[in-house]
Amino acid sequence: MSSFDLGHIAAHLEGLEETIISKLIDRAQFRTNIRVYQAGESGFDRESHRSLFEVRLLYQERMDARFGRFCVAEERPFNAKLPPPRRKVTLPATGLAVSNFNAVNLTADILPQYLALVNNCCVRGDDGHYGSSVEHDVYAIQAIARRIHYGAFYVAESKHRSDPASFDALAGKNDTESLLRKLTRPQVEERIIDRVREKVATAQANVNPAVRHVIDPDVVVSFYRETIIPLTKKGEVLYLLNRTGKRFTTQRKPRR
Amino acid sequence: MSSFDLGHIAAHLEGLEETIISKLIDRAQFRTNIRVYQAGESGFDRESHRSLFEVRLLYQERMDARFGRFCVAEERPFNAKLPPPRRKVTLPATGLAVSNFNAVNLTADILPQYLALVNNCCVRGDDGHYGSSVEHDVYAIQAIARRIHYGAFYVAESKHRSDPASFDALAGKNDTESLLRKLTRPQVEERIIDRVREKVATAQANVNPAVRHVIDPDVVVSFYRETIIPLTKKGEVLYLLNRTGKRFTTQRKPRR
Repeated sequence: MSSFDLGHIAAHLEGLEETIISKLIDRAQFRTNIRVYQAGESGFDRESHRSLFEVRLLYQERMDARFGRFCVAEERPFNAKLPPPRRKVTLPATGLAVSNFNAVNLTADILPQYLALVNNCCVRGDDGHYGSSVEHDVYAIQAIARRIHYGAFYVAESKHRSDPASFDALAGKNDTESLLRKLTRPQVEERIIDRVREKVATAQANVNPAVRHVIDPDVVVSFYRETIIPLTKKGEVLYLLNRTGKRFTTQRKPRR
Repeated sequence: MSSFDLGHIAAHLEGLEETIISKLIDRAQFRTNIRVYQAGESGFDRESHRSLFEVRLLYQERMDARFGRFCVAEERPFNAKLPPPRRKVTLPATGLAVSNFNAVNLTADILPQYLALVNNCCVRGDDGHYGSSVEHDVYAIQAIARRIHYGAFYVAESKHRSDPASFDALAGKNDTESLLRKLTRPQVEERIIDRVREKVATAQANVNPAVRHVIDPDVVVSFYRETIIPLTKKGEVLYLLNRTGKRFTTQRKPRR
């Protein structure tokens, strides 16, 4: 099945890099505006315990849920208790072997890392553009989450197919450390890092810095290195631990 | 007042170019998927007369309205009868002289032009990614509308301030043709066109065409030439015709 060809998956992940970069650049056109992350400062009636960012993310996800976004494996929501889809969503079979996509949901890890990233991408301060800031926050964080979850599901399933017995054995022993080691390919990671650095620079090469805030490629590179790549692998491990139809017997009875 | 300095306004318009370009590139990662523009094909119960695109735009604008988006002059909605803001929106005075921002609302002109643009940006066909297609449609069309309306309001007010008597005289005679002529600066338009062409190329320079669909810079250039620039000027004329506090007497009684 071509959708589990590792080259195909890597190509899709590569294509998501531009999206993440452009959404971070959009967010960076506004100040950090930390007030939008402060609980009780949303200005919304009946949302006194949430920040404006949290309200925006919740409302966006409620809308997205009605459109069926979360029927897609790699679209994992940040909020629970979302409404059911209001349209008939017919998606091709994924081939993924997991009974509940939310067994692999890294959003709780992504959120604090993203908020730290905002601090490094944006100019510190308050420009009053609260609505625009949280709008772009939501688009950026959704793009990041999509990349992490797509990798978690599809890279893990692909690698599992290449060596089901060993992966099942490690998952059966709950040996997350060995799984992580087996999933790690430092050369691939370095190639991603280099490509991202170049893309952030190129995407802004023709920008007039008097007009647009230019973000430092190293900020995005660090985010890939310290958040996107590790969380993708954490998700791969989660996927393998939660994979249905584990064949624990294959080790003892190798097929001829 | 610096917000009506023409250089400042041009710089802001220039900064919006990257946003429009990146959102069109995002949309172009999906096929045309014309089914999403067909009425009655949304799959939504109780939305049998709307297309999926129309439903998405409506739901997005309902959410945006609750966040106060349309309190901002350049954020003009495509839909009427939207809910009021649910947060207290405190915005600095714009200095614009118009009693109702919707006197300058070009969205009915933008919509069909945008749909034609999709046909030229995207690979023809159907890939089933309906939800993603309309999601990106909405982000792209909102970015385009923001650019057009920002120009319409702020360029017109800026130019009016430089020569109020002549503009008021032409507006008083409803002489839209002369207004349009007086607002047109062919050299500036050519500079925008050249810059946009270069930006579309640069933004995609490092893209792997096996992974991402690359859009033709000329498609975006034509859209600027045939839609964005003319509609911005149409908006400027509308603004001047609807400008409050016209000083029709200035021609007869020049101030000393």
